[in-house]
Amino acid sequence: MPASPAIMEAIRQGSWIRKMFEEGAILKARMGPENVFDFSLGNPYGAPPAPLAREIAHLAASPPPDLHKYMPNAGFPDVRRSVAEDLRKGTGLDFTSGLVVMTVGAAGALNVALRALLSPGDEVIVIAPYFVEYLFYIRNAGGVPVVAESAGDFQLDLDAIRAAITGRTKALILNSPNNPTGAVYPSEALTALSGILSGGEKRAGGPIYVLSDEPYRKIVYPGSEFSPPAASLSNTIVVYSHSKDLNLAGERIGYLAVSPDAADAEEVADACVFCNRVLGFVNAPSIMQRAVAGFQGIEADMSVYTKNRESLVATLMESGFSVVPPGGAFYLFPRSPAEDEMRFIAAALEENILVVPGSGFGRKGYFRVAYCMDPKTVERSLPAWRRLGSRFFGRKGGRA
Amino acid sequence: MPASPAIMEAIRQGSWIRKMFEEGAILKARMGPENVFDFSLGNPYGAPPAPLAREIAHLAASPPPDLHKYMPNAGFPDVRRSVAEDLRKGTGLDFTSGLVVMTVGAAGALNVALRALLSPGDEVIVIAPYFVEYLFYIRNAGGVPVVAESAGDFQLDLDAIRAAITGRTKALILNSPNNPTGAVYPSEALTALSGILSGGEKRAGGPIYVLSDEPYRKIVYPGSEFSPPAASLSNTIVVYSHSKDLNLAGERIGYLAVSPDAADAEEVADACVFCNRVLGFVNAPSIMQRAVAGFQGIEADMSVYTKNRESLVATLMESGFSVVPPGGAFYLFPRSPAEDEMRFIAAALEENILVVPGSGFGRKGYFRVAYCMDPKTVERSLPAWRRLGSRFFGRKGGRA
Repeated sequence: MPASPAIMEAIRQGSWIRKMFEEGAILKARMGPENVFDFSLGNPYGAPPAPLAREIAHLAASPPPDLHKYMPNAGFPDVRRSVAEDLRKGTGLDFTSGLVVMTVGAAGALNVALRALLSPGDEVIVIAPYFVEYLFYIRNAGGVPVVAESAGDFQLDLDAIRAAITGRTKALILNSPNNPTGAVYPSEALTALSGILSGGEKRAGGPIYVLSDEPYRKIVYPGSEFSPPAASLSNTIVVYSHSKDLNLAGERIGYLAVSPDAADAEEVADACVFCNRVLGFVNAPSIMQRAVAGFQGIEADMSVYTKNRESLVATLMESGFSVVPPGGAFYLFPRSPAEDEMRFIAAALEENILVVPGSGFGRKGYFRVAYCMDPKTVERSLPAWRRLGSRFFGRKGGRA
Repeated sequence: MPASPAIMEAIRQGSWIRKMFEEGAILKARMGPENVFDFSLGNPYGAPPAPLAREIAHLAASPPPDLHKYMPNAGFPDVRRSVAEDLRKGTGLDFTSGLVVMTVGAAGALNVALRALLSPGDEVIVIAPYFVEYLFYIRNAGGVPVVAESAGDFQLDLDAIRAAITGRTKALILNSPNNPTGAVYPSEALTALSGILSGGEKRAGGPIYVLSDEPYRKIVYPGSEFSPPAASLSNTIVVYSHSKDLNLAGERIGYLAVSPDAADAEEVADACVFCNRVLGFVNAPSIMQRAVAGFQGIEADMSVYTKNRESLVATLMESGFSVVPPGGAFYLFPRSPAEDEMRFIAAALEENILVVPGSGFGRKGYFRVAYCMDPKTVERSLPAWRRLGSRFFGRKGGRA
């Protein structure tokens, strides 16, 4: 086999996702894309906010000197200062620019941080259900993923996390608000987690770093509140992306920031700068670094997500689905009405609804609904959801 | 140690480079930056060509729908078609868009290709002197670098390459025009190499892929000619960056393209798309993909590099330095007049000249001069070079 057998095997294992997308593409070609309800993709809805679009246009039309050239691997110093200032406001911690590394999105940041921290065989705890890419990122750095299940409401199961800690535990990935569940972890849970990690560090013989992957932290619904993990957990590395708050997903712009309270914070930040270079990112795209510098404090436009969440949660619940209303992000993670969720997904496809099976997130028997789309499309999908409910739960719409 | 010990050791080993840069920064602060001749940095000279700058401004001012959103991990289909068309013209081979993956620069492309190809312990041949990052990229993918020295004139030493092939050889990195030597490999050498690799493949028990890292292929001086390795070597993966031809180094835009003649070309391309995703690049920055699509055939502006090359080669030779005039790129790699090149570099520093020691490229006793800078600065540096020559070779300027 000319390509790496491990890579080809990973592709083969993921081929059902590709097949699903291909079926979706065939469906769109046959029905017209406007008649297919594609809830499978986490592509944020909308364009960048108008002031940011103007800033990008201004930078491109009147480029500052050296706009497109190499800068230090950690990013432009003034951009890093803007990020640090925003983090100081958000967390109350004394973040400095030296602890910030501008990165190729949150995916780049996670790979950089994991590579900076891990030695081969080191373990990293992930909370299921999880963003499936985490497993690849951990393995890229020679690490071993260790799965801790979340509680029934997708909140942290502290006992499960305690049980997952071993002498090789080096890090834990937190993702609040969560993809795929929408769970937002309250500060009490994070404080309790802090105690568990402190205890675990004695067993692990060194710090357990928390990689706080928080690209959805500005997408939080009334009744929930984002609690910055860095404020409760000293050994935190904040990982952020401007894909969601600024709708720049394709531009690959984000950052990581080592908490000033973290063990050997400066050494870890230096290791991250080095890894940003040698992993081949080199630096975050320069025009986008400049563009986002002035938009650190901006609020995300929640209007579309709020509307879609309301109508979908209400309709799915009325139709009999078991749904935990998400506290943040733009996903629902309902229980599948069929034990084998692939059977439900096939039925949904007959209604022109595309969703992702829970097994793609390490949790069988569920499915993910990404509602980052035009509310009119969501509105038009509601009868199809109701028909699905009738089909699986009967007309009364009783709970599964 | 909280960060990975291997990473901290790599940082420590590279700390002399950082120290050198710090000394340079101190020098610039003391003397004024205009009085320091910084030949240490490979940051391409100049801004993007005016038509490209206009295109970027146009895209930013009137963004096409979904400009900043996720696209397929391999890149926008029409951009990949433009790249494939340019490669067809340049190589005579039937490159198709399906074999092209848009990447986060050439550094991203190399990491992607190596990860797609290598299993742990697989060997990759690099030709010394080499771009030092290659060693990291190979190790990132679990591979083992095997060094083959080049000939005295920095051309390929085919015997050395033959001797470097083992049963674990999976790839060879070629870099023509070369950083740091400026060597350009003629087609005869590539044809001869093809025979050696074919023989080696029998021993290796599978294809030996050639990663042709060719970001300088448009920067070639009269008397030399770029011969596309893909035209001579069937198992080639072309790696390109728009850092040098379009002066977009900070924007991280490049591509890889698997030769249609390569063994299992489509499988390798699929593996590269997958690795582009899971290594955390996800996709090449979207606005820059769109921007470069129409500039594939553009010629690089050689005027500054040609002028600098002429004056530096002439002055260094007259002053007694042993220099192989570069066929391409924007580097000289002269022999150090002191056996310990660090002694020469210290002397150069006294003349406010910053260069990089050859040991940073796997070849002691040499130094690299990057002349991607304002010709006026080069002009002002010439007396300092002459004084250095006098100091090491005596007033007659005889050869070392």
